Amino acid sequence: MALRSMRKTRGCWGFIRALHKAPQAAPAPQKDAVRRVFSGIQPTGTPHLGNYLGAIESWVSLQNEPGSVLYSIVDLHSITVPQDPAVLRQSILDMTAALLACGINPEKSILFQQSQVAEHTQLSWILTCMVRLPRLQHLHQWKAKSAKQKHDGTVGLLTYPVLQAADVLLYKSTHVPVGEDQVQHLELVQDLARGFNKKYGEFFPVPKSILTSMKKVKSLRDPSAKMSKSDPDRLATVRITDSPEEIVQKFRKAVTDFTSEVTYDPAHREGVSNLVAIHSAVTGLPVEEVVRQSAGLDTAHYKLLVADAVIEKFTPIKSEIEKLKMDKDHLEKVLQMGSARAKELAYPVCQEVKKLVGFL
Amino acid sequence: MALRSMRKTRGCWGFIRALHKAPQAAPAPQKDAVRRVFSGIQPTGTPHLGNYLGAIESWVSLQNEPGSVLYSIVDLHSITVPQDPAVLRQSILDMTAALLACGINPEKSILFQQSQVAEHTQLSWILTCMVRLPRLQHLHQWKAKSAKQKHDGTVGLLTYPVLQAADVLLYKSTHVPVGEDQVQHLELVQDLARGFNKKYGEFFPVPKSILTSMKKVKSLRDPSAKMSKSDPDRLATVRITDSPEEIVQKFRKAVTDFTSEVTYDPAHREGVSNLVAIHSAVTGLPVEEVVRQSAGLDTAHYKLLVADAVIEKFTPIKSEIEKLKMDKDHLEKVLQMGSARAKELAYPVCQEVKKLVGFL
Repeated sequence: MALRSMRKTRGCWGFIRALHKAPQAAPAPQKDAVRRVFSGIQPTGTPHLGNYLGAIESWVSLQNEPGSVLYSIVDLHSITVPQDPAVLRQSILDMTAALLACGINPEKSILFQQSQVAEHTQLSWILTCMVRLPRLQHLHQWKAKSAKQKHDGTVGLLTYPVLQAADVLLYKSTHVPVGEDQVQHLELVQDLARGFNKKYGEFFPVPKSILTSMKKVKSLRDPSAKMSKSDPDRLATVRITDSPEEIVQKFRKAVTDFTSEVTYDPAHREGVSNLVAIHSAVTGLPVEEVVRQSAGLDTAHYKLLVADAVIEKFTPIKSEIEKLKMDKDHLEKVLQMGSARAKELAYPVCQEVKKLVGFL
Repeated sequence: MALRSMRKTRGCWGFIRALHKAPQAAPAPQKDAVRRVFSGIQPTGTPHLGNYLGAIESWVSLQNEPGSVLYSIVDLHSITVPQDPAVLRQSILDMTAALLACGINPEKSILFQQSQVAEHTQLSWILTCMVRLPRLQHLHQWKAKSAKQKHDGTVGLLTYPVLQAADVLLYKSTHVPVGEDQVQHLELVQDLARGFNKKYGEFFPVPKSILTSMKKVKSLRDPSAKMSKSDPDRLATVRITDSPEEIVQKFRKAVTDFTSEVTYDPAHREGVSNLVAIHSAVTGLPVEEVVRQSAGLDTAHYKLLVADAVIEKFTPIKSEIEKLKMDKDHLEKVLQMGSARAKELAYPVCQEVKKLVGFL
């Protein structure tokens, strides 16, 4: 239980939660000289509808904006909670396949495996020597987690926000897509960048968050909660790789209310509004339009309509994932090439940092 | 003040405190298949008489025993307290010069700079994810330090014992010379080795301490305290690079008692016994012999005799240090070559660890 609840808020970070905006509606990039976006996702479990609409689709869209983007499969973060090595190994490849199938293009972005770029932990150590214990202990996520675990979390679970800061700063990133559960962690990144610059001279850009509407896809079984890959109720979460039958079954069992009409009213009708939001996001149509098109349908029929739209969205992705997973060599090569490119950027920054700190 | 007292117990680690034994009297190495010794020293300040007799002389001696030895200038540890970058940069070279002048032979041992081997922080992160916060918070040194600093120490100061564990385990070291203030830290190294082996299969040797008599050189001004490079009383500490005049002055002002006879009785005559112990150590003569030779001398004259013996020991070392410090390129080359050799050992171990954890 403790693990489950930890993962709930940690599956990924630097994620945009942009359900209620089509990705192309993201605000125009700020006019920085060189914009560099960093984001990471943990290689634990198949991405679900919430990951896809809240983050991955936005990652894909960010590839087409000016500047460079780095997407990291943050395996070092995943071991802050226990992992089975064989499962982890497979999950890294599965996540790579899922991201590629969703549209992450290794020509347009640097898709890489965090543990393959040794500079992440080097910079992390240096930053660890610049932060005080209470600062980490007062982060909401640690407080929530350590309370749940009776202070039995690993030290990695306490200090991973510093590793996150290193992830971002190592590439002199200027922008980070941030979900609402990561706002405090971005503040830590910013404070560490400012603290380093103050001590050693201007070096790191202070990264900004990429602002999007921070809406979340809700659980199909409890629309007051976020959709989560670790939800114990199998029916709550729609995975990218679910079969059409599973998707239909999950939407059919989605919790709504006793009003049969389809309306969008998140404050009073969480369940059906979640369906409308999903419908709008997967079709790219405005909320008003999907509501208009559904006039006269009762919620039971509407659920099937939404399920169909999701199936239509995920069918080609699922088929591409299956194809990619057959070619392990290709997936490994993509990660190796991405990691080599990331290292090319990370190495000189890390060398500069070492000079500034006095190691070289 | 807080910093000073921190450094008191942290200038080096993996140090042998062997004042009352000549180095050659260290116990014979245990009959392990391959013995590998790891030890580290922080690049902060010129080594003093306590460092020399307690540690460096034993390092020199260990080079001639079967197996391999690694000596690391642990610059990553030094930044757990604030450092001036220019001073740190110089101190790394100065420490290299001092170790070479004392007899560390880069042909017989691997003398290297910790920050140049990226695998240290990589393994450290993995181990950080295997240790619980209370374990680190209960270590004596952290408790003492954080109490003194009102819990204002950096997170690096809390977690550096995990980095120490990585330092040792990265080379599959079998033996670590340990001072008495580091016994708890070696226990942590051992527990992490066992914990890793239990989870991932037998991989790391569980390193043993090299047992020596754990005596310390005492302050010349307060023989109840350890000699320390950060002592605010300049006269308390004899540095390897002190001039003969400074050495004479410091011994002349050494605190003894109101008995003028020279005897060895550490329990009741701390001051004069410290002088006898130093005298014995620098001449290589047994304590009984130096006491016998000093019969009839009063302590005032005896102090000058000890000062002369120390001057005789340090004069060639001091002159060699000065020579070496003129050749910065040579010192840098020694460190680069040592670091390259260390990396050759560290890289395959780190790759194996990554495979076991599930990253590869």
